[in-house]
Amino acid sequence: MEAQLKNIKIEKSKTTKINEVDFDNLAFGSVYSDHMLVCDYKNGAWETPEIMPYQPITLDPAAKIFHYGQSIFEGMKAYKDSSGATWLFRPKNNHKRLNISARRLAIPEIPEEIFMEGLTTLLRLEKDWIPSNPGSSLYIRPFILASGNGFHASPADEYKFIICCAPSGAYFSGKVKVLIEEKYSRSANGGVGYAKAGGNYAGQFYPTQLAVKKGYNQVIWTDDNTHEYIEEAGAMNIFIRINDTLITGPTSDRILDGITRKSILEIAEDEGIQTEVRKITVTEVVRAAKSGALKEMFGAGTAAVVSPISTFGHKGVDYDLPELQDNFASLLKKRITDIQYNRAEDKFGWRYKV
Amino acid sequence: MEAQLKNIKIEKSKTTKINEVDFDNLAFGSVYSDHMLVCDYKNGAWETPEIMPYQPITLDPAAKIFHYGQSIFEGMKAYKDSSGATWLFRPKNNHKRLNISARRLAIPEIPEEIFMEGLTTLLRLEKDWIPSNPGSSLYIRPFILASGNGFHASPADEYKFIICCAPSGAYFSGKVKVLIEEKYSRSANGGVGYAKAGGNYAGQFYPTQLAVKKGYNQVIWTDDNTHEYIEEAGAMNIFIRINDTLITGPTSDRILDGITRKSILEIAEDEGIQTEVRKITVTEVVRAAKSGALKEMFGAGTAAVVSPISTFGHKGVDYDLPELQDNFASLLKKRITDIQYNRAEDKFGWRYKV
Ligand SMILES: Cc1ncc(COP(=O)(O)O)c(C=O)c1O
Ligand SMILES: Cc1ncc(COP(=O)(O)O)c(C=O)c1O
Repeated sequence: MEAQLKNIKIEKSKTTKINEVDFDNLAFGSVYSDHMLVCDYKNGAWETPEIMPYQPITLDPAAKIFHYGQSIFEGMKAYKDSSGATWLFRPKNNHKRLNISARRLAIPEIPEEIFMEGLTTLLRLEKDWIPSNPGSSLYIRPFILASGNGFHASPADEYKFIICCAPSGAYFSGKVKVLIEEKYSRSANGGVGYAKAGGNYAGQFYPTQLAVKKGYNQVIWTDDNTHEYIEEAGAMNIFIRINDTLITGPTSDRILDGITRKSILEIAEDEGIQTEVRKITVTEVVRAAKSGALKEMFGAGTAAVVSPISTFGHKGVDYDLPELQDNFASLLKKRITDIQYNRAEDKFGWRYKV
Repeated sequence: MEAQLKNIKIEKSKTTKINEVDFDNLAFGSVYSDHMLVCDYKNGAWETPEIMPYQPITLDPAAKIFHYGQSIFEGMKAYKDSSGATWLFRPKNNHKRLNISARRLAIPEIPEEIFMEGLTTLLRLEKDWIPSNPGSSLYIRPFILASGNGFHASPADEYKFIICCAPSGAYFSGKVKVLIEEKYSRSANGGVGYAKAGGNYAGQFYPTQLAVKKGYNQVIWTDDNTHEYIEEAGAMNIFIRINDTLITGPTSDRILDGITRKSILEIAEDEGIQTEVRKITVTEVVRAAKSGALKEMFGAGTAAVVSPISTFGHKGVDYDLPELQDNFASLLKKRITDIQYNRAEDKFGWRYKV
C-alpha cells in the first residue's frame, strides 16, 4: 500500500481535539476529526491531494458554490470491529455514485485512486476517531464544491474535493413518524433527484419543517405530478412490507440509488423474504393499512441505517403500524450492521478493510 | 438619508482596483468592485451590516452551503445616466423576491431596511464602478448562504447576506439560438423553481452544455411531465409573438416571477400591443413557425435584458425566425432601457434614485 500513497501530501495537526469529545454521547455529524483531505481541480486536472489539519476554507465571494449550488456529496461510514480494525462498506459504490452526480452537475469526475487512496490514508490517520460504542461510527463526508468564480450562470473552472470525518451516534433516536407529501416535491423528471446534489436537500428543508410542526419527523416524498407514487423517505430509500412481501420503488432519475437499499434487497432475498421492486402507490398503502395487510415501513440509508416507521400521516389521518415481534426491519438491520462491524461472515464481499 | 445609515459600519479599502479594469471591454460578472456588504445572521437575528473591502469568505468545511445547497440570490443592475446620477430598477421587487426565495429555502428573511440601505450605501461608495458605456451597467449580486455547520440534513443556524458588484457588459453577444428541451428539466411541481435558489442553476449546466455542443446557446425549459409547455429560456423568462400577439406563460411554482417579464408586459400594453399570459405549447409554436405566424421569440431578464432568439431547435429540426423591421423586441428593449438609464419619462414609477 505504501507505494501508492506517495502522491498524497500529509501535514499532521500539532494538537488534537479528541479529548474534548464525549464519545458516549455523540450527536450526528456535529464534531469533526483532526484532519481533512483537500484536492483541488485547476487548469483542467485534479492536483495532488493533501491531508491537512481540519481548517476553514477560504473562497472568493464570487465562487460559484455560493451562487449556483454547484456541489455534490457522498455519505459513508467507517466501522471499528472488536479487534480495533477499521472497515468500510462497499466504498467503491460511493465513488461511482459521486461520479454519476458529478456528470449531472457538470463537475469534473474524480479518479478512483484519488478517492480511495485519499479516503483510506485519511482514515488510517484518524483511526482513533472511529467510535467503538454500539451504533456509533465515523461518518465520512466526501464532497465537491465549485470554487471557481463568476456571476455568469455556467459551470465553474475550479473545484475542491474534500473529505471530512465526524464521529457520530444514531441519526434518529427511536421510531420515525412520517407524513406522505401531497404538495411539495424533491425532484423532477429529467431533474437532479438521482444525484447527491446539494440543492436537492435545501429544497426539502421547508416542507420537512412544516411536517415537523405537525408532529412528524420526516416527509415521504411522492412524484411531483400526481403525489400518488411513493418515492423516498427524506434522505432514505423506503421499504414497505405488505403481508410477507417487502416492496421498494424502482430507482429512476428522481430517486437516489441507495447503497443500503440495494444491500437490504440482497440480504432479504438471502433470508428467503419475498421482495418486489415496483412502483407503489399511496392508495395501495392506505388500503393495506386499513385492511391490516400493511405490516412494516422503514427507511434505509447510510446515515440512519434501517429506521422503522411507527406512523404515517396522509390527508389528515394518521395510520399506526403494528409492533411485530418478528419484524423484517430488526432482522435486516442486524444482518447489515453485523457485516459492517465485522461481527458476521460477509458472503457478499461488501466489507472493505482499511 | 445620513440618519438612516448610522447602523452600517464602513471600512474603506485603502487601495482601488478600478484602474486595472478595461471599461470598454467588460465581460459579464467577472470583475468585482472594491467593496462588498456583509451581514451575519446569528442567534436568531440579523446583525449590523458592514461594508468592507472586497475579500475572501472563510467558512468551516462543514458549513451547510457546501453540502446542502442552502443559498438564494438576486440579480439587479445599477445604471448611470448622462448626468452621472445612479438609478436602480424596481429594487424593492428584488427584496420581496429574495424573501420569497428565503421562505422556500428555510432561510431567515432579510428586513427591507438592511437590504435597501445596505444596497444604496454600497452603491454610493462604488459610484465610480458604474460603467457609462452604452449597454454596460453595474451588475449587483445580493445573496444569502448558509454558514452554520453540520452534516445533519436540516437548515443552518447561521447565514451570511452579502452584496457584491460587478461592472458588466452584455450577457449575450448577438442573437440567441435555443433548443427546446425534451428530456431534462429545471423544476418540479411543488419544487423550488419559482425561487432563485442556487441549486436550480447547477441543475441546468449539464443540459445546457449538451445544447451548446449541438450549436445552441441556451435551453428552453419545458414542463417535466410532458415537455409540451414552454416555461423559461435559461435564466430568462420567454416571450413569443404569434402574428401580432405577444404571449408569455403564467408564473407558477415552477417559473421565476421575473421583474423584466412583468415590466415588459406593462410596457407592451402601454404600446397598444396585444398581450396574452397563458400556457403555450411546443406544438402551437412549431405550427406557427411552419405557417409563418411565428414572428418573434425573445428572452427577458435583468442580466440579458431583452434577448432576441434567431432560431429554435426541436426534435432535430431548426426553425429560423424572420428578421422583422418593426419587431417588438427592439421596441420593448428601447423602452425599458430608456427608463432604466433615465433617458425617458418613467410613467410607471419604476426608477429608483440612489
Ligand atoms: C435522497 C437520499 N435517498 C437515499 C439515501 C440512501 O442512500 P445510501 O444507502 O447510499 O446512503 C440517501 C443518503 O445517502 C439520500 O440522500
Ligand atoms: C430562472 C430565471 N428566470 C427568469 C429570470 C428573469 O428575472 P428578472 O427579470 O427579475 O431578472 C431570471 C433571472 O433573473 C432567472 O434566474
